[in-house]
Amino acid sequence: MRILILNGPNLNLLGTREPSIYGQTSLDSLIMDLEKRAHALGIELYHYQSNSEGSLIDQIHLAIDKADGIIFNPGAYSHYSYALRDAIAAVNIPVIEVHISNISARESFRNLSVIAPVCLGQISGLGLHGYSLALDFLADYLAEKPLS
Amino acid sequence: MRILILNGPNLNLLGTREPSIYGQTSLDSLIMDLEKRAHALGIELYHYQSNSEGSLIDQIHLAIDKADGIIFNPGAYSHYSYALRDAIAAVNIPVIEVHISNISARESFRNLSVIAPVCLGQISGLGLHGYSLALDFLADYLAEKPLS
Amino acid sequence: MRILILNGPNLNLLGTREPSIYGQTSLDSLIMDLEKRAHALGIELYHYQSNSEGSLIDQIHLAIDKADGIIFNPGAYSHYSYALRDAIAAVNIPVIEVHISNISARESFRNLSVIAPVCLGQISGLGLHGYSLALDFLADYLAEKPLS
Amino acid sequence: MRILILNGPNLNLLGTREPSIYGQTSLDSLIMDLEKRAHALGIELYHYQSNSEGSLIDQIHLAIDKADGIIFNPGAYSHYSYALRDAIAAVNIPVIEVHISNISARESFRNLSVIAPVCLGQISGLGLHGYSLALDFLADYLAEKPLS
Amino acid sequence: MRILILNGPNLNLLGTREPSIYGQTSLDSLIMDLEKRAHALGIELYHYQSNSEGSLIDQIHLAIDKADGIIFNPGAYSHYSYALRDAIAAVNIPVIEVHISNISARESFRNLSVIAPVCLGQISGLGLHGYSLALDFLADYLAEKPLS
Amino acid sequence: MRILILNGPNLNLLGTREPSIYGQTSLDSLIMDLEKRAHALGIELYHYQSNSEGSLIDQIHLAIDKADGIIFNPGAYSHYSYALRDAIAAVNIPVIEVHISNISARESFRNLSVIAPVCLGQISGLGLHGYSLALDFLADYLAEKPLS
Amino acid sequence: MRILILNGPNLNLLGTREPSIYGQTSLDSLIMDLEKRAHALGIELYHYQSNSEGSLIDQIHLAIDKADGIIFNPGAYSHYSYALRDAIAAVNIPVIEVHISNISARESFRNLSVIAPVCLGQISGLGLHGYSLALDFLADYLAEKPLS
Amino acid sequence: MRILILNGPNLNLLGTREPSIYGQTSLDSLIMDLEKRAHALGIELYHYQSNSEGSLIDQIHLAIDKADGIIFNPGAYSHYSYALRDAIAAVNIPVIEVHISNISARESFRNLSVIAPVCLGQISGLGLHGYSLALDFLADYLAEKPLS
Amino acid sequence: MRILILNGPNLNLLGTREPSIYGQTSLDSLIMDLEKRAHALGIELYHYQSNSEGSLIDQIHLAIDKADGIIFNPGAYSHYSYALRDAIAAVNIPVIEVHISNISARESFRNLSVIAPVCLGQISGLGLHGYSLALDFLADYLAEKPLS
Amino acid sequence: MRILILNGPNLNLLGTREPSIYGQTSLDSLIMDLEKRAHALGIELYHYQSNSEGSLIDQIHLAIDKADGIIFNPGAYSHYSYALRDAIAAVNIPVIEVHISNISARESFRNLSVIAPVCLGQISGLGLHGYSLALDFLADYLAEKPLS
Amino acid sequence: MRILILNGPNLNLLGTREPSIYGQTSLDSLIMDLEKRAHALGIELYHYQSNSEGSLIDQIHLAIDKADGIIFNPGAYSHYSYALRDAIAAVNIPVIEVHISNISARESFRNLSVIAPVCLGQISGLGLHGYSLALDFLADYLAEKPLS
Amino acid sequence: MRILILNGPNLNLLGTREPSIYGQTSLDSLIMDLEKRAHALGIELYHYQSNSEGSLIDQIHLAIDKADGIIFNPGAYSHYSYALRDAIAAVNIPVIEVHISNISARESFRNLSVIAPVCLGQISGLGLHGYSLALDFLADYLAEKPLS
Repeated sequence: MRILILNGPNLNLLGTREPSIYGQTSLDSLIMDLEKRAHALGIELYHYQSNSEGSLIDQIHLAIDKADGIIFNPGAYSHYSYALRDAIAAVNIPVIEVHISNISARESFRNLSVIAPVCLGQISGLGLHGYSLALDFLADYLAEKPLS
Repeated sequence: MRILILNGPNLNLLGTREPSIYGQTSLDSLIMDLEKRAHALGIELYHYQSNSEGSLIDQIHLAIDKADGIIFNPGAYSHYSYALRDAIAAVNIPVIEVHISNISARESFRNLSVIAPVCLGQISGLGLHGYSLALDFLADYLAEKPLS
Repeated sequence: MRILILNGPNLNLLGTREPSIYGQTSLDSLIMDLEKRAHALGIELYHYQSNSEGSLIDQIHLAIDKADGIIFNPGAYSHYSYALRDAIAAVNIPVIEVHISNISARESFRNLSVIAPVCLGQISGLGLHGYSLALDFLADYLAEKPLS
Repeated sequence: MRILILNGPNLNLLGTREPSIYGQTSLDSLIMDLEKRAHALGIELYHYQSNSEGSLIDQIHLAIDKADGIIFNPGAYSHYSYALRDAIAAVNIPVIEVHISNISARESFRNLSVIAPVCLGQISGLGLHGYSLALDFLADYLAEKPLS
Repeated sequence: MRILILNGPNLNLLGTREPSIYGQTSLDSLIMDLEKRAHALGIELYHYQSNSEGSLIDQIHLAIDKADGIIFNPGAYSHYSYALRDAIAAVNIPVIEVHISNISARESFRNLSVIAPVCLGQISGLGLHGYSLALDFLADYLAEKPLS
Repeated sequence: MRILILNGPNLNLLGTREPSIYGQTSLDSLIMDLEKRAHALGIELYHYQSNSEGSLIDQIHLAIDKADGIIFNPGAYSHYSYALRDAIAAVNIPVIEVHISNISARESFRNLSVIAPVCLGQISGLGLHGYSLALDFLADYLAEKPLS
Repeated sequence: MRILILNGPNLNLLGTREPSIYGQTSLDSLIMDLEKRAHALGIELYHYQSNSEGSLIDQIHLAIDKADGIIFNPGAYSHYSYALRDAIAAVNIPVIEVHISNISARESFRNLSVIAPVCLGQISGLGLHGYSLALDFLADYLAEKPLS
Repeated sequence: MRILILNGPNLNLLGTREPSIYGQTSLDSLIMDLEKRAHALGIELYHYQSNSEGSLIDQIHLAIDKADGIIFNPGAYSHYSYALRDAIAAVNIPVIEVHISNISARESFRNLSVIAPVCLGQISGLGLHGYSLALDFLADYLAEKPLS
Repeated sequence: MRILILNGPNLNLLGTREPSIYGQTSLDSLIMDLEKRAHALGIELYHYQSNSEGSLIDQIHLAIDKADGIIFNPGAYSHYSYALRDAIAAVNIPVIEVHISNISARESFRNLSVIAPVCLGQISGLGLHGYSLALDFLADYLAEKPLS
Repeated sequence: MRILILNGPNLNLLGTREPSIYGQTSLDSLIMDLEKRAHALGIELYHYQSNSEGSLIDQIHLAIDKADGIIFNPGAYSHYSYALRDAIAAVNIPVIEVHISNISARESFRNLSVIAPVCLGQISGLGLHGYSLALDFLADYLAEKPLS
Repeated sequence: MRILILNGPNLNLLGTREPSIYGQTSLDSLIMDLEKRAHALGIELYHYQSNSEGSLIDQIHLAIDKADGIIFNPGAYSHYSYALRDAIAAVNIPVIEVHISNISARESFRNLSVIAPVCLGQISGLGLHGYSLALDFLADYLAEKPLS
Repeated sequence: MRILILNGPNLNLLGTREPSIYGQTSLDSLIMDLEKRAHALGIELYHYQSNSEGSLIDQIHLAIDKADGIIFNPGAYSHYSYALRDAIAAVNIPVIEVHISNISARESFRNLSVIAPVCLGQISGLGLHGYSLALDFLADYLAEKPLS
């Protein structure tokens, strides 16, 4: 089972960018933590971050042959990138949208995600835990393991 | 550590109501599964369901003395109950909003939750797993346990 | 064949409330008239009125085992109760929405019913006759009787 | 007592047009059924159908001398013909607006009728029965017959 | 100099329709008064009324060879007939839009005229005088007579 | 002269809920102060608080036989409860709407009250004094005492 | 019979300001022409122009004792001065709103006049003739002279 | 194979109406050109133009027995005629919507066509070529000829 | 303790203007009543009324050195004068906004006050009593006197 | 004569992506077909596809020296890329916008193209034929060949 | 070369009003600094401040004969004074709009200036430097001095 | 002191693109002029232009270590790139937004910049001088030099 962790614009600055909103852990450190957890779950993880909408679309296309599930934090592209939405709709892979901060509690332009309707589900506001919960979920979901 | 599982209108019909959207597990069965998981995590769980907005508000008030965290599926009240929003803002308890279906992928009136801005975070579209992920999260969050 | 007549908020005041809009017949008197008509049609009628959204939802749930059709005047809840809408969508019973006054000819907030999309149909503006027409219709509809 | 059955655009295709929405009865057959019922109620019925907004307005004007009530299915003109609205407001005849399908459950442009505010009332979503219920109602209403 | 008086839907009912809004003079009587005034001004007048949008468009097209100016009361078509707007834009004739009642003081849908932007000007709320003022104006305007 | 003090959702938490917005006086203490003042004015006071929309409607109905005036803080129901609005319109009792905080200075959803149009007037932003000012006003108003 | 010609902001620049829109006649010259016409109609005319909203309101108040009718070009205040609207509603004098240019054919903010609903009527787009037509109208209207 | 060329309001003026937008070719001349092209493609063409919405609807109904495809320029009716939209949805014939000018580059009311959603496709802004391209397309489409 | 009573546009006409809405007491008489009451409360009162937005702003600025509180009825300026709003925000004086009529029950443009967010609170719909209640409140508020 | 075929985001997946909407032909195969057709028309064709907005802009700039016309399917960028719009407006080359599916019949965000106003025209909903029709058109247009 | 520095409502309070937003320099001190700079640039400066919309319009009119350029901070009038907009459009003088604070970063009503479209340009958010930069610009602009 | 001049999409075409709007100076020439000016001010300047949103974000991130201030013309990205907005908010560097043309005087989609709220300020409509004024400002601002 392979999972792609996909991070969008400005997430490379994690740990330095607006720490009161996004926390102080760096992206590298987050990925290492997730890899450990994935290893424990028997999942192979790979990661991609880009500030470019086009590169993120390319990466989603490549996932057709490389991933069984995607954990995607689209950053601000969530709110206007219909091209990313189309990319997700075009590939046959379950995508979980993750936001570190609670996007419902911030500026109104952040309240709606145009990408959400084509994802399986969303986790928002649970900090970096959002990524690991998504990982746990995909492990169960892809194994078709019921709740209990 | 005590957690309140709070379910809003129509969730008593879980397992019978629109199963293509909400699945076939009953509410009782869900709560039993969650209790097992809670037990394993050393958490005490209690559950309340009501179709009445006022009773849900009452229950949130009572939680001041009874719960360390709330997992709340407000059902359709999510989209207009400013009174529930005020109740959550009034008590000093972290609340995780859970939706079984992906509310971003359904009718437009379901896309925005007026309750979300005063919750800690949301999980939507991950089926009944949403409840257990919220439980896992609160266990870590209340124990101030970092991600890794 | 059993039909539930369900009346929402403020309809208990029928006959006393704004008589220029709602007329001078009391709710009791209306129900007696409908019962006579139902009796003639071989229909068993029962009635429930509440000012509480939650109680109305409860009653719709109970109708699963008790009614073959519902005639529902949701009063002002028509215009914002997505929880009532979900209750109707959740039960597999035909619902006819009735409004005594012409809701299209009053304040703009009354022009749209959020409940209407999940009902079979609506009758509005025909006074108390709206209830008896709905009864006649359900008698035919449930008996699968064609128009002529 | 004379009643005009007035049908707007595309209703001449009844029975052939989108049968999943509008059913399989033809307009002629519907009118014959209504005439039988009218006869039984001691009502004289006449019918007019046109795809032309202007002709429908002409017909409403002519009804001043010819009809005591109008049962009107304005079809799609419901949603923008302020000229038809003015025609109804200009004549002193009670008009019942009828829609075969539930216009609240279809495309959003169909949710509001600009004609409804000047009609006595509306029946929507009850199929062809809507016409006969309107007939029954007008028989009572014009005879000033109370509910019971 | 020839002027077309063009009247839209429901204006044939002038004098009988909602007299508190539109007054008690009939259309015939209005036209006779205008003809007298036109005669005094050395203007040839002709009149056309129709409830049909298409016939009004036809008449505007015919005016290319028959009229030097048009006084047009489009009735309710003012508020949605982009086809009438295009007809006026297509012919090279000055058009004065006249409304008997003050359309700014009535329902909000009457506040904007989609036809107004392609007319030379509008007179609204001055009762039947609006027609005669428009006539006086066109007499001066077409004769290129300055104000004083 | 009898006055009902009616408090809506979350006002039972007064003194503990968001004290920077609502102050530190408890509801009991407020009512005691108002009762003293009422006593001095020769007014009989009674109080009801509920988090349930339906119970508040019930109470307004009961006031028909019990109260000459109502001082109502509808809390968050102000912003969407058309059912409460209808209840007030249905009873023939002057209602003064009171808000402790300045609802115009908070979130935009709080800026409009759907209940205000059927009340006699509103007092907002004057803290708990709003209740006592409303009491003073009703004393004068019900006694038909002019300003000076 | 006395008429006030009231001109709002920037109309003192008439003849110099954007002549392609407003023409080349000065305000003084316009008033002289109107005075001649008024004299012929047996009307006493007086004129006031100001760029100040407050002064225009003052002048409307003073008209209570000085004028039988007002011809008012509110300039850009038409589009937002609710205070001017209230002033007109407060005095019991018929007001005709005049605009030199066709306000429906210009920027969208000019399409609606907030003052129009409390005026008797409007003339727009007929250049300076608008003033003289309004004068002719008021002469007839105040003399209660019918159309012919 | 038979194709109906259907032209809506004001297109009879083609060649004379606003030539900077619509060009200088007359409608007759356009139809002759299209007939030549149709002849070459082995297609039988017939043409209908009307300024009347009702007549256009009638013609679409008649096409059920007469045409295999329709090339339709609805003129300004594109932007509000839900009745024409219903007519197209009611008949089982592929319709191509053609606009001579680029409706996206003109007034905002022209940017959306309410008819477009029930057509097979649209061609806009390509001048009179739009008609011949639609013809070429229908020839291929009806013959189920693939692209190459 | 000094209080400024500030009245905006058209309030000089109090007692004569639309008495069904604003009552029959003149402004002078109101001020005399308020002065008596102020005297009893040991408050020095001064009054200013203007129809000019600029003069009202000037007066608010002058109040910096002259008043401890302001009771302000901004009339129609409430609904668009952001300049008055800025004036209030700029001076460090508590302002109570008073409206004689219930602005929530009138035209929709009156429902929102752009000035309210920078005032301490509002009283609306309580007639001239609104002024005296505001006076009573400021007496307590400035003396930091608690409710009871 | 040189034509650039420019394809935007996700069109590289043509033939695999949502085949019920976009068909089963691959992009390579489409381009080969178009090249054959171009060859027959004496046109030199070159093709560029990218998922990156910036690269598409770069390519439009390069076309200044390389292409006489552009056939552009902007994919989802149609609905928000004002930067692409500016790129087209900046180069002096006729652009035809092509959409494979009928964008008017899908989600509402797809109904408007922000790029359309600066293109010569659009073809939408005609499948892959849209490209070849655009090619035929440009061949005629650039050769200034009239319709017949 | 003469430049008018024009300051709108509340700017007389500069240095005392909300210093966290507008700074602590007084208006007098600002004007003295600007005069020094103007002197160095060989520009004659004069200044006018008013809280009255009408006086600001008067001053812009007077500038026709007195100024070659205007630096205008319209304060809150920026957001609704179409009369000021018309005044600027009426005079043939370049106007630079200056705002001390960043109006895009404050309340949403401040985000749009209705005056901006008729100014040459705007400077916002650069504090008092905005005035001096505007001065430098006008010196170059009026001298037709290119950038370098 | 180092300043980054950052130019967004289509600005590479400066001097050739729509010269009536953007002028005839090339980007190279502009940068040379700015470098001269920077040199005189003791500032080190570097420049970056890209049509790619992602590359612009990358460059803003790199500026953390390379620049003390940024002068940014985001071109059309101003109106929708929330990702660029986040990039600016993420780095701790003052950014001045510059637009060559007056974006308030063009299409409505250009009137609002989503980037403006996180910049220090904006200069718009002052042509290429906007860049040099921003440079002068930053020189003073970074040196904490007061106005005079």
